[in-house]
Amino acid sequence: MSETHRIINFNAGPAGLPRPALERARDELLDFDGTGISVMEHSHRGEAYGRVHDEAEALVRELAGVPDSHAVLFLQGGASQAFATVPMNFLHAGRRADYAVSGGWGEKALAEARTVGDARDVLGLDREWTRIPAEHPDGDGAAYLHITSNNTLEGTQYHRWPDAKAPLVADMSSDILSRPLDVPRFSLIYAGAQKNLGPSGVTLVIVDRAWIATARTDIPKIFRFATHAAERSLYNTPPTFGIYLLRNVLAWTRDQGGAPAMEARNRAKAALVYAAIDAAPDYYRCPAAPGSRSWMNVVFRLPTEALDARFVAAAKAQGMIGLKGHRSTGGVRASLYNAVSVDDARALADFMNDFAKREG
Amino acid sequence: MSETHRIINFNAGPAGLPRPALERARDELLDFDGTGISVMEHSHRGEAYGRVHDEAEALVRELAGVPDSHAVLFLQGGASQAFATVPMNFLHAGRRADYAVSGGWGEKALAEARTVGDARDVLGLDREWTRIPAEHPDGDGAAYLHITSNNTLEGTQYHRWPDAKAPLVADMSSDILSRPLDVPRFSLIYAGAQKNLGPSGVTLVIVDRAWIATARTDIPKIFRFATHAAERSLYNTPPTFGIYLLRNVLAWTRDQGGAPAMEARNRAKAALVYAAIDAAPDYYRCPAAPGSRSWMNVVFRLPTEALDARFVAAAKAQGMIGLKGHRSTGGVRASLYNAVSVDDARALADFMNDFAKREG
Repeated sequence: MSETHRIINFNAGPAGLPRPALERARDELLDFDGTGISVMEHSHRGEAYGRVHDEAEALVRELAGVPDSHAVLFLQGGASQAFATVPMNFLHAGRRADYAVSGGWGEKALAEARTVGDARDVLGLDREWTRIPAEHPDGDGAAYLHITSNNTLEGTQYHRWPDAKAPLVADMSSDILSRPLDVPRFSLIYAGAQKNLGPSGVTLVIVDRAWIATARTDIPKIFRFATHAAERSLYNTPPTFGIYLLRNVLAWTRDQGGAPAMEARNRAKAALVYAAIDAAPDYYRCPAAPGSRSWMNVVFRLPTEALDARFVAAAKAQGMIGLKGHRSTGGVRASLYNAVSVDDARALADFMNDFAKREG
Repeated sequence: MSETHRIINFNAGPAGLPRPALERARDELLDFDGTGISVMEHSHRGEAYGRVHDEAEALVRELAGVPDSHAVLFLQGGASQAFATVPMNFLHAGRRADYAVSGGWGEKALAEARTVGDARDVLGLDREWTRIPAEHPDGDGAAYLHITSNNTLEGTQYHRWPDAKAPLVADMSSDILSRPLDVPRFSLIYAGAQKNLGPSGVTLVIVDRAWIATARTDIPKIFRFATHAAERSLYNTPPTFGIYLLRNVLAWTRDQGGAPAMEARNRAKAALVYAAIDAAPDYYRCPAAPGSRSWMNVVFRLPTEALDARFVAAAKAQGMIGLKGHRSTGGVRASLYNAVSVDDARALADFMNDFAKREG
C-alpha cells in the first residue's frame, strides 16, 4: 500500500471505523479502566464489563431514540442469522409473512424465511432492483412485513417508510444510525454492526417487548428474542469486546452530534459523489433510480468492465480502497458509512472528475 | 485494584489471555500488516484478512491434529447456540439423541435438544455431578452421543474418552487444546473460544465432513454446518477481529510447544492447587471425585460461606481475581486455563496454604 497517501476506506463491511474509537481501544487494550487486564479478559457478569454493556445500551437508546416499549439487544450471527430467527419467532403456523424484496439481501432473507414457513415477495420487482416503489404494500393480514432499509448491492435506500398494517420488520444493517430513526414505527429492527456501529460479530436488535410476548415458544431457547430481552443480552456469554468497540463507536457518534449530524454528513457525502456521476452521465452510469439512491452505498459502472477495473486500481494507488463492486454485481461501489468523512467523499468525487476527464 | 500486585486472572470465561497475544493486537490495532488500517476494517473477503483466516485454521489443524476428514469452522453464538444447532442438524425425525449429562452445562445442552426432538440423559447422575462414571454408555442406536468434556461448574473432567457406538459429539469449550486431542474419535467438537482460544464471540467447530453430508437440510441455511463447511466459514461475515485474536492466541500456544506442552503445564498447575486442598482436607473441601478432578477448573469450598467470601476478598487484595464460584454453585473456583502460568497457580497454592494456616 502507498506510503504517500492516507488510506481512505470505502469498504462495504466490515468497514472503516472512527479513528478515535480505535485509538481508545488500543490505548486501554492491556489495562481497561485501571483494572490491570483487558476488557476482553473480564467476566461478562462483572462490574467492569457491566458498565460497558450498560453504556452501549444507553447510547443506542439515546442515539436511535428507543422508547422503553422496545428492548435493545446485542446478539450474534449478523443479519444472516436474523433472516432465520425472525420467522422462527414470529411466523406462526398457518400465518404468512410478507417480504418486500428490494435487493439481493432481501431475497436471501425471504429464502431463509421459506425454510420456516409461508413467506412471499410482495414487491415483485425484476432482479435488477433499481428502485424502492413509491406505492408500497402494507402487509395487511401478514404476520409481519419485512423490508431492507438500504440495499448495499444495488445502491438503493428507503427514504420514506411504508405505512404498514402488519408489524414492520427492517434489516437496517447498512444504514442504521445514518439518520434519525422513528423506532415506534417498527416492531423489530436488526443490524449487523460492521457498517455503522462497530466490528463484525455483533448484531444489534431493537424489538417491541409486546410483540416478543406473542412469539413462538416451541423453538430453541437461544433463538427466542424473549430469552435475550429477559436477560439483557447476558443469557449466554456475549461478544464482549465487540460490544465494547460498538460502545466506542457510538460514543464517537454522539460526540459528533448524533443521528442528526450523521444525516447532514451523509447527505453531503452522497451529494458529492452523485454529483460526480451526474457530471459525466455517459461515463459513470448509476443504476439506482434518482428517488431511490442510497446515501450509504453509491453503485456505478464505467463504460466497460476493463475501465471499472482500471478505475478501482487507480483509486487504490491514491489510497482509496474498497471500491470494487460486490462479487455478485461487479462495477464500482463506494460505501459512505458514518466513519467516512465529507473530505473523504470529496477526495473520491475529485478523483472521479479527474478520471472521467483523463480517461473518458 | 491493588497497585502493588500484578493481576492474576482466574476468571472462568471470558478468561485471561496470553500477554503476547494481546500486545501483538495492541501494536497493530491501527495498522495491520502495513495496510494502514485495522484488521477489523478489512473486508472478510480481502487478502489481508484472508491470511489471518487461513492461518487460524492451519493452527487449529496443527495444534489439535485435525485430519482432512474433518472441517474446521469459526462460527458464532458460543456453546449455547451449538446446544441447538447440533440437534437441528443431526437429530432426524424418529431418531433419539443420547446425552451423557455430567454437569449443569450438559443439562442445558439436553434441554435445548429436547426443543428439537427426542433426547435423553443416559448417565442419570444426581445433580451434584461429582464424577465422570467409569462405566460409560456407548450411545448404541442413537443419532449421536453427546458429552461435556470438562464441567466448569462442578470441576470434573473426562480423563478417558468413552467407547462410543454412535457419532461422538463433545462440548469442549473449557478444555480444548489443554492437552493433545484424538480428533478422529469425534464426529463433532464445539468450543466457545473464551477459555483457551481467544475472546468471546467465536465458536470453534471441528466436524466430520462425511457426517455433515447426512445432516438435515430442512432447517435454515445459516444453521447448517454444511453451509459453513462449504464456504470455509465465509458464508456470512465472520467475527473477523475475534478470529484474528484467536490466531494470536494459537500462535502463542504453538510457540509454547503446542498441546503436549499445555498438558504438562496444566497437569503441573492443577497438581499445585489440588495439593493445597489435600494438605488441609478439613478446611478445603473439593466435591469432585479424585479420578474425575478437572485440570481446568478447581472447585472447592471452605467451612462456611462467610469464609468462602473472605477467601475470595483476601485473594483479590493480593491481585488474584475471578475466584468467586459460579452464581449457581457458590464456593470458590480457580480456572486454570492455558494462559494461566505455573507461577500463577503456585501463587494461588501458596496463598491457600497461608490462608488455611492463618484462618483455619
